[in-house]
Amino acid sequence: MNKTIFNYKKNNSKRVYISTDSGIKVGMKEVSLQNDSKVLLYDTSGIYAKENYTHDIKKGLPKIRTEWIEKNLEKYGEFKTQLWFAKNGIITPEMEYVAVRENQGLTNESKKITPEKVRSEIAKGRAVLPSNPKHPECEPMIIGRDFLVKINANIGNSALGSSIEEEIEKALWAIKWGADTVMDLSTGENIHETREAILRNTPVPIGTVPIYQALEKVNGIIEDLNWDVYKQTLLEQCEQGVDYFTIHAGILKEHIPYALKRTTGIVSRGGSIMAKWMDYNNTENFLYTHFVEICHILKQYDVAVSLGDGLRPGSLADANDEAQFGELKTLGELGRIARANDVQVIIEGPGHVQMDKIKENMDLQLKYCDEAPFYTLGPLVSDIGAGYDHITSAIGGAMIAWYGTAMLCYVTTKEHLALPNKDDVREGVVTFKLAAHAADVAKGHPGAIERDNEMSKARYEFRWMDQFNLSLDPDRARKFHMEMIINSDKDYCGMCGPHFCAMKITRSIKNK
Amino acid sequence: MNKTIFNYKKNNSKRVYISTDSGIKVGMKEVSLQNDSKVLLYDTSGIYAKENYTHDIKKGLPKIRTEWIEKNLEKYGEFKTQLWFAKNGIITPEMEYVAVRENQGLTNESKKITPEKVRSEIAKGRAVLPSNPKHPECEPMIIGRDFLVKINANIGNSALGSSIEEEIEKALWAIKWGADTVMDLSTGENIHETREAILRNTPVPIGTVPIYQALEKVNGIIEDLNWDVYKQTLLEQCEQGVDYFTIHAGILKEHIPYALKRTTGIVSRGGSIMAKWMDYNNTENFLYTHFVEICHILKQYDVAVSLGDGLRPGSLADANDEAQFGELKTLGELGRIARANDVQVIIEGPGHVQMDKIKENMDLQLKYCDEAPFYTLGPLVSDIGAGYDHITSAIGGAMIAWYGTAMLCYVTTKEHLALPNKDDVREGVVTFKLAAHAADVAKGHPGAIERDNEMSKARYEFRWMDQFNLSLDPDRARKFHMEMIINSDKDYCGMCGPHFCAMKITRSIKNK
Repeated sequence: MNKTIFNYKKNNSKRVYISTDSGIKVGMKEVSLQNDSKVLLYDTSGIYAKENYTHDIKKGLPKIRTEWIEKNLEKYGEFKTQLWFAKNGIITPEMEYVAVRENQGLTNESKKITPEKVRSEIAKGRAVLPSNPKHPECEPMIIGRDFLVKINANIGNSALGSSIEEEIEKALWAIKWGADTVMDLSTGENIHETREAILRNTPVPIGTVPIYQALEKVNGIIEDLNWDVYKQTLLEQCEQGVDYFTIHAGILKEHIPYALKRTTGIVSRGGSIMAKWMDYNNTENFLYTHFVEICHILKQYDVAVSLGDGLRPGSLADANDEAQFGELKTLGELGRIARANDVQVIIEGPGHVQMDKIKENMDLQLKYCDEAPFYTLGPLVSDIGAGYDHITSAIGGAMIAWYGTAMLCYVTTKEHLALPNKDDVREGVVTFKLAAHAADVAKGHPGAIERDNEMSKARYEFRWMDQFNLSLDPDRARKFHMEMIINSDKDYCGMCGPHFCAMKITRSIKNK
Repeated sequence: MNKTIFNYKKNNSKRVYISTDSGIKVGMKEVSLQNDSKVLLYDTSGIYAKENYTHDIKKGLPKIRTEWIEKNLEKYGEFKTQLWFAKNGIITPEMEYVAVRENQGLTNESKKITPEKVRSEIAKGRAVLPSNPKHPECEPMIIGRDFLVKINANIGNSALGSSIEEEIEKALWAIKWGADTVMDLSTGENIHETREAILRNTPVPIGTVPIYQALEKVNGIIEDLNWDVYKQTLLEQCEQGVDYFTIHAGILKEHIPYALKRTTGIVSRGGSIMAKWMDYNNTENFLYTHFVEICHILKQYDVAVSLGDGLRPGSLADANDEAQFGELKTLGELGRIARANDVQVIIEGPGHVQMDKIKENMDLQLKYCDEAPFYTLGPLVSDIGAGYDHITSAIGGAMIAWYGTAMLCYVTTKEHLALPNKDDVREGVVTFKLAAHAADVAKGHPGAIERDNEMSKARYEFRWMDQFNLSLDPDRARKFHMEMIINSDKDYCGMCGPHFCAMKITRSIKNK
């Protein structure tokens, strides 16, 4: 499978491993340039991209973290969360791994991210390192605003949709293009089996929304949901190795009247389910009332909680309203409870928000939620982009990431219209990788603009292969260019013709 | 031709004409919704979109402005520019037309843009209404920061590229998707004929870069360029009816050393040509030294000057540098000279600029250039987006338009790689229309968010046809949805299945 999906060789690239002082091997992508230099890039493809690696889906990926996990289990007698380690001043192998990974090819020692910086950010609750010990196939990564902006790709079949094999292929396809985490939002049949297959074969953290499976267990009847069936679902998914759960514990009875006044009501599936449940039972959200018990479960597996924004706005008309910000305040409270229980916390955010209202979202999130990592869906800066909502949301996503959001959930071209196919997944992932990278550059993140500079130098020197291989989608860049190129060895291309190439003309001035 | 390209009927839409008090008929797009209401939208398609209209390319479009032009010619004995009329307190039919057009379907009288507002903005030099009397086929439109953000689509064959017919089809294709102006950047053979065909068949302002044709006239030998051949080219294009010229008069000898220090030197074709010419002749830019004469020519035809940024940065490394801002200051000076000569002025802007450096571009443009309309290419917020640069640039474009840029030049997916085909033109135009609209919404432009609100209401009420028809690309939205839909009369679709539709669940709470 990796032969066809992960074609690094074709792009003058290879999967390499950088060793830390303590012998940890960190996977990176190395691009060889036409001028004989090399560029090291962050790599989400895992061992799949390694030359000559052959994969057996039934066997799954190598369990790279097992040794570390067992060593700690022996030492402490139980699983401890990365937050517990961080609070206690302990740098874990996962933190070491992450530090190397974040530095990409940076050579300036003074700008490098250290394992201590990673520990300290986790300890403060400003960063999350999702790492369920039951998912030892996962390569450690970090989500926090002092690190590279991450992106998540959603996959998952609906009741009417696709197969398990298709979902695995979507997951691998997503990491090939740069997805840092993958959420499995399956709601149809074979939820358990689909998730199992994805976990055993994916080297990035996997997130889920457990209420979806809980609801399937009660045959889709929202009124029949209860704490017990939800708790069993959590335990089942913790045991499988899910790394983070979206839990809609922040939507409360008091918020519902505000939501019902809206133009588009509640657009979060989890949010609408909990609202309906509360409305029918005339009782407070059981995810809220049982939140401490939830934390006790999550803590045992180091599953991070991603506090879902059940009241995210589904239209510009509803952006930044009482419903949304009321819930955000509750998410802040819940975050404090989780961290007090050594559970790592992410806060989810909108949604549909016009550009002039985006910054307020970030400002209030920082204020209410103690700088816990913010994880947004877009935001989409208009409602009229149907068919182009990867772009509507990339605009808002790039902006909010620049303002401080740690992870962006991708949105595909099919958003609001249909389920994405493979092409849509690629388009969505690359689009969001671009938005995330633009934010890294704007934030002045160490090592970020270096890739742009390499690209620009290659452009000015007509090193076409390097331009392809340094771009986020080398296959597409090459294809577009080759379709029209006459001779790539010439120092001009078919776009402007020989008389009108600005860079060629400029070079002729320089070389006088 | 219009039968196949302009399919308004299919989208429950039609071309309608709104009459002003003085009897001027303004073309708009009217969308009929499933709830029996109607929405009026800005329309760039011209008479092509009118039901049963058949077009003859050889005959060209109806000359809708001829009567107004001849009346004024008779009255004043010569052509006067819109700026002259505006300065003299005269509201022209073009200004009236524009006011109606800008208001879209707005019913709130107090928020409406008035003809007097249009006149006053033009008089202040804060807006431009391109209107060469030799292009009477053109429907009046306005470029300025108190009006809807406009977008331009570039077309044009290169020495190695496409045919005249293809270029016309690209122009019509671009206006179908919403291009407000079209620039013909042809550099190959048949420049004159291509431009003639485009002008006679396109109802939006046409811009060109006359130095390209001047260079062809001297067989591509930059050293042989001179004022006389350029002047003849200007006159030729003025007579044909070009509405605005990009003129690289702001790049001076003193800027060149700064440009040569850059990572990517000079990336503007016009800029590199003038730099090379100055370097060879060791003389100041002849477009600068002859600028007053240029204004005298342009004034006679009301051709607006778009002062080209020959030193726009071609990489993040070069953004906001001395070369760029040095030229911008010169553009400000030239703008004052042009307006003193009653010539309408646009200022061109970058380029490649990281998000955190975008605002400075807008701030300095306002400061140096007396608030003349800013017209930018992107900016692209990263250099590594090859194959996705319509997105890299839409992110920067949406932001700078929100900050006050009046017109965005589209960038296609093929930027840096190849010439765009029809699909690329559509993708680029719709992407920039989205960026422009997002900016209109963020600026609180009257009438802008209303379309989003209509869309959101349609979404919440599962009016699928209305969602398609209110989006920027109804064909794509419909296609995406229909490919997966089971039954569009059901109040759920295939995306979430019947149990997980948030909006359906929310409505069930509301309806209790």
